[in-house]
Amino acid sequence: MSRAWLVEQLASLTPPDSASAQATRDRVNDILRPSGALARLDEIAIWIASWQRSAQPAVSRPVGLIFAANHGVAAAGVSNYPVEVTAATVAAFEAHSSTVTAFADIAGATVSVVDVGVNEPSNDFRTMRAVDAERVDHVIDVARRTVDALDTDLLVLGEMGIGNTTAAAAVAHALYGGQVHEWVGRGTGVDDAGLARKQQAVARGVARMERDDPDASGIDVVAEVGGLELVAMAAAIVAARQRSLPVLLDGYVVSAAAAALLDHHRDALAHCRAGHRSAEPGHRRLLALMGLDPLLDLDMRLGEASGAMAAVPLVRMACAAVTRVPTFTEWFSR
Amino acid sequence: MSRAWLVEQLASLTPPDSASAQATRDRVNDILRPSGALARLDEIAIWIASWQRSAQPAVSRPVGLIFAANHGVAAAGVSNYPVEVTAATVAAFEAHSSTVTAFADIAGATVSVVDVGVNEPSNDFRTMRAVDAERVDHVIDVARRTVDALDTDLLVLGEMGIGNTTAAAAVAHALYGGQVHEWVGRGTGVDDAGLARKQQAVARGVARMERDDPDASGIDVVAEVGGLELVAMAAAIVAARQRSLPVLLDGYVVSAAAAALLDHHRDALAHCRAGHRSAEPGHRRLLALMGLDPLLDLDMRLGEASGAMAAVPLVRMACAAVTRVPTFTEWFSR
Repeated sequence: MSRAWLVEQLASLTPPDSASAQATRDRVNDILRPSGALARLDEIAIWIASWQRSAQPAVSRPVGLIFAANHGVAAAGVSNYPVEVTAATVAAFEAHSSTVTAFADIAGATVSVVDVGVNEPSNDFRTMRAVDAERVDHVIDVARRTVDALDTDLLVLGEMGIGNTTAAAAVAHALYGGQVHEWVGRGTGVDDAGLARKQQAVARGVARMERDDPDASGIDVVAEVGGLELVAMAAAIVAARQRSLPVLLDGYVVSAAAAALLDHHRDALAHCRAGHRSAEPGHRRLLALMGLDPLLDLDMRLGEASGAMAAVPLVRMACAAVTRVPTFTEWFSR
Repeated sequence: MSRAWLVEQLASLTPPDSASAQATRDRVNDILRPSGALARLDEIAIWIASWQRSAQPAVSRPVGLIFAANHGVAAAGVSNYPVEVTAATVAAFEAHSSTVTAFADIAGATVSVVDVGVNEPSNDFRTMRAVDAERVDHVIDVARRTVDALDTDLLVLGEMGIGNTTAAAAVAHALYGGQVHEWVGRGTGVDDAGLARKQQAVARGVARMERDDPDASGIDVVAEVGGLELVAMAAAIVAARQRSLPVLLDGYVVSAAAAALLDHHRDALAHCRAGHRSAEPGHRRLLALMGLDPLLDLDMRLGEASGAMAAVPLVRMACAAVTRVPTFTEWFSR
């Protein structure tokens, strides 16, 4: 049922509000500074206006939404960390003792964590579909209800799950082809042997998917070789679109889940921007293919929405630069 | 007298506090996240610690300090804007109606503006030294007293002055050589004819300096072909060093004034970081020569400390990620 909702939403996407975008563009062109001086930030303000459907773009209630889950493929030895770290990290989020919660305090944001499978990992995608149809429906439903209930004007999307850069690489490789090694990086810092195990796991998973479900595309790729939190993030992006809520994407794992939606509709991510580019080489490649230009490029590789959260003040500044600064007309008619 | 103070300071520079840096580095290596995951931000926190001389690096009172002045070389038609815009922009800062003040609200910063020659421009450097010795002394003294009086833990340095990207290009060309066209950009957006006038003004100014004062280096280059606010910024950087206060540099004009200090001592800018890289091609070239890697690269070209102010939340986050997140040791001994 929920997968059907997702596919249906992607076939009839909420468009941006071009009137609010145009009104904001007109104001930008008359603001008390040299025209074009803010470049990317002006574009961000116009983008926010178009999705908030308001000529007064503002980010006053940003929310970091983190989906957490474990991965069967972790059994392949693809991470330096045991799967127990996922639960420990979720506990740190909830105790306000994590990097992203420290960032959120400075960004004026709150953080919400949703467990979609920390104690019930996805299947090992090397040998079987990662997320079966019933769980896909369930997780989409959880994500959709979560996003619908948020009081926010900017969704900052992130994840936590030991092994999930392997899942991201598998999804990206399945979606875009290329060579396995181009998509697989060191994640939290595996050594050469760990990197080889990651490459092998990705190659096996994608080959298995191509045997079991040769026509898989979009959300079904995420279910085949992604994982529970990737399905949830894809659904959250669609739910945000239904609400006309702008979304800031975090790193490689979020971007891979998002990219799958482009199989359904090439405009599926018009309400999304990349908060940052991570140190994972696959992320650079993926963002380029998706046509996304990140706000930050600081070699971060933490996940948990931290890179996108670091970009939130820039989005807030972009809006303030349009709404809190007078136009030439206003200034000289004081 | 004040020039002598500056030169003397640069000969006996305050060193960073290596004990605070090491204590912060030790804590970074035990923080509850994969080692190295914050990359550049960890380095920023250690840098702040070393200059704040504290193992609890924090940015709680950032101040944007903007020096404003006009330029005799504006008579060469190097800007799209008349010199009156400098005073109007200063009025907008003071009325809290400018881009940088809007940014400062979000960054948790205040903004301070110092007029060092809005109504009394520097001389036209095409035909004579931009700032005579007496004014150099006066402006250094003003900048020094201003920085000494600030209650702040991070100085965010910027400028305002119609014509000052021409002055920046002249200083950079005089310091580093190369071709004139490599240093001259469109500033606030001059057309091809304006660009040619800028190139010619820079070439004439530097050639004149090389005739009048062939041995000029460091602060004297800034006085010859820079301008009043550039002299003030150079002095502010030195005054901050005396206080062991970290400094975030804004765009091309600030960087050119800072670069001159490297003639006096190669470690003169160890307490400085580049907040952003602007759209001016000369700024990219200059930062590379100075060995500075900017936090942001968003094609902004506004000046008035705005690019550096946009980076302040990142510096605050870098500190919070070290001081507000538990170590593995702390977390598992709760």
